[in-house]
Amino acid sequence: MRKSYVELLERFKEACVLDEVNMFLYWDRDVTMPKKGGKQKAEQVALISKLEHERRIDPRVGVLLKTILTHDEFENLSDLEKRNVFLIQRQYHKIINVPAVFVGEFNKQGVIANEAWEKAKDQSDFSVFQLELEKMVVMNKKYANYLNPDKDPYDVLMDYSEPGMSQEKFEKLVIPLKEVIVSLIKECSQSNYQPKNTILKRKVTLTLQKKINLDILNVIGFDLERGRFDETVHPFTTGSYDDVRITTKYFEENFLSAIMSTMHEAGHGEYEHYAGKNGKYQPVGMWCSDGVHEGSARFYENIIGRSLAFWKYYYPKFKELTDDIFTNVSLEDFVAVINKTEPSAIRVDADELTYDLHIILRFELERDLINGRIEVKDLPSIWKEKMKTLLGYDVKNDAEGVLQDIHWSDGLMGYFPTYTLGNIYGAQIFSKLKEDIPDWEKEIEVGNLQKVLNWFRKNVHEEGNAQDSYDLVEKITGEKVSSKYLADYLSNKYTNLYKLN
Amino acid sequence: MRKSYVELLERFKEACVLDEVNMFLYWDRDVTMPKKGGKQKAEQVALISKLEHERRIDPRVGVLLKTILTHDEFENLSDLEKRNVFLIQRQYHKIINVPAVFVGEFNKQGVIANEAWEKAKDQSDFSVFQLELEKMVVMNKKYANYLNPDKDPYDVLMDYSEPGMSQEKFEKLVIPLKEVIVSLIKECSQSNYQPKNTILKRKVTLTLQKKINLDILNVIGFDLERGRFDETVHPFTTGSYDDVRITTKYFEENFLSAIMSTMHEAGHGEYEHYAGKNGKYQPVGMWCSDGVHEGSARFYENIIGRSLAFWKYYYPKFKELTDDIFTNVSLEDFVAVINKTEPSAIRVDADELTYDLHIILRFELERDLINGRIEVKDLPSIWKEKMKTLLGYDVKNDAEGVLQDIHWSDGLMGYFPTYTLGNIYGAQIFSKLKEDIPDWEKEIEVGNLQKVLNWFRKNVHEEGNAQDSYDLVEKITGEKVSSKYLADYLSNKYTNLYKLN
Repeated sequence: MRKSYVELLERFKEACVLDEVNMFLYWDRDVTMPKKGGKQKAEQVALISKLEHERRIDPRVGVLLKTILTHDEFENLSDLEKRNVFLIQRQYHKIINVPAVFVGEFNKQGVIANEAWEKAKDQSDFSVFQLELEKMVVMNKKYANYLNPDKDPYDVLMDYSEPGMSQEKFEKLVIPLKEVIVSLIKECSQSNYQPKNTILKRKVTLTLQKKINLDILNVIGFDLERGRFDETVHPFTTGSYDDVRITTKYFEENFLSAIMSTMHEAGHGEYEHYAGKNGKYQPVGMWCSDGVHEGSARFYENIIGRSLAFWKYYYPKFKELTDDIFTNVSLEDFVAVINKTEPSAIRVDADELTYDLHIILRFELERDLINGRIEVKDLPSIWKEKMKTLLGYDVKNDAEGVLQDIHWSDGLMGYFPTYTLGNIYGAQIFSKLKEDIPDWEKEIEVGNLQKVLNWFRKNVHEEGNAQDSYDLVEKITGEKVSSKYLADYLSNKYTNLYKLN
Repeated sequence: MRKSYVELLERFKEACVLDEVNMFLYWDRDVTMPKKGGKQKAEQVALISKLEHERRIDPRVGVLLKTILTHDEFENLSDLEKRNVFLIQRQYHKIINVPAVFVGEFNKQGVIANEAWEKAKDQSDFSVFQLELEKMVVMNKKYANYLNPDKDPYDVLMDYSEPGMSQEKFEKLVIPLKEVIVSLIKECSQSNYQPKNTILKRKVTLTLQKKINLDILNVIGFDLERGRFDETVHPFTTGSYDDVRITTKYFEENFLSAIMSTMHEAGHGEYEHYAGKNGKYQPVGMWCSDGVHEGSARFYENIIGRSLAFWKYYYPKFKELTDDIFTNVSLEDFVAVINKTEPSAIRVDADELTYDLHIILRFELERDLINGRIEVKDLPSIWKEKMKTLLGYDVKNDAEGVLQDIHWSDGLMGYFPTYTLGNIYGAQIFSKLKEDIPDWEKEIEVGNLQKVLNWFRKNVHEEGNAQDSYDLVEKITGEKVSSKYLADYLSNKYTNLYKLN
């Protein structure tokens, strides 16, 4: 009776394993590949991604789906099994018209463009990257057209990262949010109280930083027997289940950057560690959406990692590990400064308040690039303009401007909005967590992070893809997704930090 | 006109890229994989090797071969192109009856057996490995039966590593060689001159050793922009062309081990760096046979690495890099001791004279295992007996006995003879090199290794698989393969070293 279902899942597993292999080839590219290995790596990535895609759109999948859905077999499946069938079907119909050869070419171009991007970033010269990015934009448009020729191409790309998402839906969330943020930024900048910025620039050697970041991973409980921790140009997470690899990046005169990146990636990594509860290599045993993935990452990074409670626990240890560098800095000053809000160039180093403006900027640029309203060659200047208008920041050069992020070089467009979606989901889920664990701060203050993190693992990670992101948030919180929780969270946090009342 | 040929080569390239990916998954297993990642890695290796095999035996390959061979197309191909067709055809007919599912299972079992082997070796307890090795032997028999049910299964496995090889052919080479070796060992042991063994046990810190080994790679000219150098439990080489990765293993109280392993693997690695000259991802642009691969490795390790000429050049630098540890050791004593012959437990650390006896032992055991004349459970005791008879050595435990090598755990049987074949080929090729470069020793003594190595790269590496091993040796040397060159090389070397005349 379950024969077709079993075969469908076996085929899905093969595609998953190929995806694992592919992600791992990217990991190698960024962590262990020799300098001149890029061309061969591109061949490998192209082939594996082509084979993966061939499996996903194999006509046999269509036959199996039809057999399952038109016979009694479907009715006898459990709810999770039905969800598996639904998710495979949704994906199948979404990608059926994307040629496997194109997927191979797309991924190959990603490896080539990434090499050009690294070089351009090193030299802070956008022109080194321009041509490859132009190709990437053309390929993204083509991709969107294959996925759905009848819809706005940027909506198609957004939906690919976050099922159900669109420009309209995203704008509905961020327009009111932006208003709150802009007014909060203004109030903070006018406050008499300003955190002592210079603390952040105190030099912490790389050796010390490595020790601290590893220690923080232990405090979080990130299992290094089921993963790795390395250093790369751009922090990222890859892998799944029992082999999840995260990376970070150290700067001697900005210790905060690595800590926040490490916690961010640990949030991604733990999602991958726990998402298999409903069944490894099954759709329901994978992450729900990129937005929820970022939600997990930014929950670990910000809601936990920048909280007073966490640093009440960890600051003494941090002081000890950094020798005498911070002896004269009070806990209050330290927490204030790691949350200090100010217009700045780099998204990954931005404070929680300005962060979403960086995303809105990227959202607008991607949307206009894909819809042909702006051209790649004008990106550096448009970037500068927008940074000035949105954040009041003067971008000095391409490296701290348009070249700062890896995403476009990898072919990721329509992904950036998921960071803000993650913040929105995270804040809403956090409001429920506080109800369920009213003494959450006290638990963290005494070093018992596990009570809070276990709640998050159980309610978010272990749910895998049992439902879509909006339904997950509603299931957890009992409310429809809304950006008001994030607005409230930021208002409360920054009102306190900047003593606005 | 060339349509079928082009398609055939395109298909071959896909199989090559899959093989690269697979080799790389093994590299990860041994170098970078987290502790608990083995199960997932096994899934990956199983799938990729299955897909590779499916490609190699795809009926379309048969159709293309037939089309090429029965039409004018073949006649219009160049000699190298004809060789490509021949090699693909030979492989196709060899492996056509091996089911892809079996190849997947075989490789999966390799990952699992390897984990058991590592554990068994750590605990020096063969029983921890026995069950997995039994499975591996059964699978090897099955493999041989799929490849050719009409031939002696061990001959089939030998032919798989070394096209054309058989027990009879191998014995014809090694029986006279063994006689020479056994009598030389006896003479050396009775000589009044004996190298000072204790020098080898002087402690060299791992930090110093790493520096020295990296420096030796530079002296050889191994291009680290097209490769990597890491540390593993068992030294190995993987990858091809512009991404070749070699590993070594350090022992604080045996500095020689790492140096010899590094040079050995560099010999493998350079073969992969240069083999693509006739065409990357084409049969003619790959290694010729495992025997020639080992020939290259053992040429670098022994003929160069243990030569007086090399150490005349390198010993002053070595002394400098090791601080004061060897100041009172003369060059002559040093070279004598790194060539000292004595019965010892570990194959990879064996001197050149006793080395082939270690291989003959493994050859006999594999042959008898595959043909059911002995059982896996009896291996530890038979190993001990044979070590006593052949080498007069008393094996103390399983770790220094039957568990020392990785090969069987990876499913490699029929491979060991290629080491001795490599020694035989290497010595014969070296005799020609000395004719072509009469002042080879002087060149090396002044640090110009490149003259000798370039000769080897051009005559061996760059030939790729333009002909089979026996033909390659004959092409280079003008003589049929014979073990007399190795016998002469060893006689000369050890007569000098032990002052036998």
